[in-house]
Amino acid sequence: MTVEQQSYDRVWNFSAGPGALPQPVLEQVRDELLNWHGAGMGIMEMSHRGKEFMSVLEQTEADLRALMGIPANYKVLFLQGGATQQFAEIPLNLLAGRSADHLVTGSWSKKAYKEAQRVASQAGGSARLAGSSEAGGFVGLPAAGTLDFDPKAAYFHLCTNETIHGVEVFDDALIDAVPAGVPVVADMSSHILSRPMDVSRYGLIYAGAQKNIGPSGITLVIVRDDLLGHAPATLPTVMDYKVMADNDSMLNTPPTFAIYIAGLVFQWLKGLGGLAAMEARNAEKAGLLYDFIDASGGFYRNPVEKSARSRMNVPFVLTDAALDADFLAGAKAAGLSGLKGHKSVGGMRASLYNATPVEGVKALIDYMRDFQARRG
Amino acid sequence: MTVEQQSYDRVWNFSAGPGALPQPVLEQVRDELLNWHGAGMGIMEMSHRGKEFMSVLEQTEADLRALMGIPANYKVLFLQGGATQQFAEIPLNLLAGRSADHLVTGSWSKKAYKEAQRVASQAGGSARLAGSSEAGGFVGLPAAGTLDFDPKAAYFHLCTNETIHGVEVFDDALIDAVPAGVPVVADMSSHILSRPMDVSRYGLIYAGAQKNIGPSGITLVIVRDDLLGHAPATLPTVMDYKVMADNDSMLNTPPTFAIYIAGLVFQWLKGLGGLAAMEARNAEKAGLLYDFIDASGGFYRNPVEKSARSRMNVPFVLTDAALDADFLAGAKAAGLSGLKGHKSVGGMRASLYNATPVEGVKALIDYMRDFQARRG
Repeated sequence: MTVEQQSYDRVWNFSAGPGALPQPVLEQVRDELLNWHGAGMGIMEMSHRGKEFMSVLEQTEADLRALMGIPANYKVLFLQGGATQQFAEIPLNLLAGRSADHLVTGSWSKKAYKEAQRVASQAGGSARLAGSSEAGGFVGLPAAGTLDFDPKAAYFHLCTNETIHGVEVFDDALIDAVPAGVPVVADMSSHILSRPMDVSRYGLIYAGAQKNIGPSGITLVIVRDDLLGHAPATLPTVMDYKVMADNDSMLNTPPTFAIYIAGLVFQWLKGLGGLAAMEARNAEKAGLLYDFIDASGGFYRNPVEKSARSRMNVPFVLTDAALDADFLAGAKAAGLSGLKGHKSVGGMRASLYNATPVEGVKALIDYMRDFQARRG
Repeated sequence: MTVEQQSYDRVWNFSAGPGALPQPVLEQVRDELLNWHGAGMGIMEMSHRGKEFMSVLEQTEADLRALMGIPANYKVLFLQGGATQQFAEIPLNLLAGRSADHLVTGSWSKKAYKEAQRVASQAGGSARLAGSSEAGGFVGLPAAGTLDFDPKAAYFHLCTNETIHGVEVFDDALIDAVPAGVPVVADMSSHILSRPMDVSRYGLIYAGAQKNIGPSGITLVIVRDDLLGHAPATLPTVMDYKVMADNDSMLNTPPTFAIYIAGLVFQWLKGLGGLAAMEARNAEKAGLLYDFIDASGGFYRNPVEKSARSRMNVPFVLTDAALDADFLAGAKAAGLSGLKGHKSVGGMRASLYNATPVEGVKALIDYMRDFQARRG
């Protein structure tokens, strides 16, 4: 355990979200909580329209743009409601009487598709399935050539990292196959900022904060300018991207503290070398864990096709589910938390977000090796 | 200044929201930030579905129910989106093809009315004005007998404390005049928890957190059971009160940190003697300030009818607006912050939320007296 971890009796936190936050960020938040930069009050006690918070919001957006290389013709919005609210906001803002294609590769893209079907008629539109890997159990991604695209679709929606089944899109072929002129809309909630992304390939990127961005309560939406302004006139005002963009995310009081923490996380990322450095770190972490699982002679197994294995969420099962309870209890005693798999699939799951360094993964592997030696 | 204030160089914070939080709460948040109760991680790093956060959510709701005396046939929801999202959610959930009456007594109830008009057709309904004090400049409340009620209205909406003009509803006559069977829906954002309220007189109470509850990012909705389940089938799922209630506010990841802080604020209120004690404290605070203003020989003036003067938000003007800049600069130098009036009305405004003790109000009065002596 690192010195930092020991000094607060902190555990290694593999929770899928809300999840671990960088310790230096938490220390700064703690130190500034009652008095931010001599203002005589904390950030969460300040008006969102005062110069202090406005400077925090500006810096936070600027740092995100720099980290991700967001082109100037994209708006950056800090919204409320979670990705689940985006499942409705996206069709309501973007359909404008047309159909939208959906790729279903896991629980989240399935929910997004269902919600689009639910609300589409309010925007005079509809939702359509372009492809699904559900029949195979969500253990991989369909080949780009097997998808059934509508060249007139208002947009094509996918989830580029599915947390429950641990499936991540790495191959550009999937995005490249989308017909020209159809904007790509991606739920990047669980892997945004884990590696560089070419934002210009997307019409809209969205992400709930509570994995790599900050605490829950903030939803990031990065949206290309030309997609704004087509929402129905009866859409709730807070759900209209154009209105929120025109008001710099401050039509009403935003979650100021969550935005502030996101800003500190972005500065921490910059200090570590940005997204390229994160990619190297995350590839190493995930590589170590998958290699260990694959070399365990079947004691641990991960079912996902190798090319689609998520670096952020590593689900695995034990050879005998009867060992699960002891595995988790032993892990907890060893200072490894949040390993229980999602209830819909059972088993185990280690989430390896940016805030967890390679030492955490090594500690997990040490425990898993030891558990296998004792119980295998 | 109290010893507590001095030890962190904190100022007296009169911001209208986000606003001051109780210092003991902030100290506890700071102390637990990296390790909550030995869990080895902070609250904002935990799964919302783990036993730790679930216990926090349960306790937070239980304490609120106890503080406010919320009857068992009301749901307590912790939602996202702010009061502004509720301006749309309320008509969408409650209209069910009917008309809703609105009382406009300031900026917030005016916005609520406009938003209801905007979205009502999606619920097959409409919005109607039952009365307004706009013609008089929002300096009082209409007499109950002058309102034009629709006895078949789906609900009657009012804002019981308007922050910008500083108008608060104290007289039950207004609510009593609403036709029997028409639920009363109240925006209590800026004065909830400042005094006891009889929840049973209301069908729905809502409040953005960032005045007396906690940091921005959480919106409280207290809604009577019989009003649930009438939303259109095409309503975005996160906006459906029944769905959120069925999921104990956790259809998706809620703002866990904001809920946790609200829980600490509720415990702090309980420790001080609950809402009756708060009422006495707030009546004293507001009384001191209004009495001082009224006795200043016109140097300071508050235009609101005495019976409707808000205890939470005290707008006032100086006899000569040319003195405003110096007044604010001197206040800042004296450790008094957040006094600038809302841009729509100018002048000054002191917000006196629960977290500001009477010492803060006395410090403000001392400054105002001194300023008048020097510049009057």
